[in-house]
Amino acid sequence: MDQVPGSTGTSAGFALRLGQTIFSSASLLFMSFGVQFYSYTSFCFLVTIMGFVIPWSFILALVDGYSVLVTCPIRQKGVMLIIIIGDWLLSTLTLGAASSAASVVNILITADRSVCPPRMCSRYLISIVFAFLSWFLSMASSLFNMWVLPSL
Amino acid sequence: MDQVPGSTGTSAGFALRLGQTIFSSASLLFMSFGVQFYSYTSFCFLVTIMGFVIPWSFILALVDGYSVLVTCPIRQKGVMLIIIIGDWLLSTLTLGAASSAASVVNILITADRSVCPPRMCSRYLISIVFAFLSWFLSMASSLFNMWVLPSL
Repeated sequence: MDQVPGSTGTSAGFALRLGQTIFSSASLLFMSFGVQFYSYTSFCFLVTIMGFVIPWSFILALVDGYSVLVTCPIRQKGVMLIIIIGDWLLSTLTLGAASSAASVVNILITADRSVCPPRMCSRYLISIVFAFLSWFLSMASSLFNMWVLPSL
Repeated sequence: MDQVPGSTGTSAGFALRLGQTIFSSASLLFMSFGVQFYSYTSFCFLVTIMGFVIPWSFILALVDGYSVLVTCPIRQKGVMLIIIIGDWLLSTLTLGAASSAASVVNILITADRSVCPPRMCSRYLISIVFAFLSWFLSMASSLFNMWVLPSL
């Protein structure tokens, strides 16, 4: 069978996983250092989800890197199914967390300045942008893998 | 080829579309009557998206109903691709809108009672629950159709 670029075990797939790891780590770091994220449920949710996405993407990046090096992609249907479901679940949760955090920031910005000084608000915003990027990449991974699944 | 239950042109697909139409209409009605949804960006976003989901689901429900009656399901790859992309786009937007509205309600509930009296807050909550149900069904439609696509 043909290799779909972006699916597990290809170099494009490895790049996607690496991007997910970097973006989700950046999102977590911007959200958790120097700002009081724990005062808002949505921000706590975002931090929790990022805490799940980082190890998941990192481990799959290692698996992909290994598969590319030994040129032996994963072709077990069960393993692919777990990866697809995990990706899909995490990308859904990331999207939910990112959009709820975005709406909280929107409310904080329209509220008075004492609640959210510009320096903190911009950090929240950067963190949310990284979360959206991470969502986009993990959704792409999930779609590429789903495309491969019926041909296994 | 075999029919996947839930894909376009099956009776399960028709039921999914009908459910989407009902849930998104209920979400729109609960959000727009008697409450000031326009004071919050997220609620406006939710109402806008529901305004797109209702005609989309309704038209596809009609198409599915017709296909079931004449027992002639849609099998053109291009049409299926448009349906899948539309479903996927709308389900993503619905999820984003529902979770951002949910986080706004969460903030309103923790704020003082004058901002959000219990009667209004419960209407917001019901509307959001319906939006999540509509998201779930339209995502299911999208996945079932995506499953059919490679075999076309």
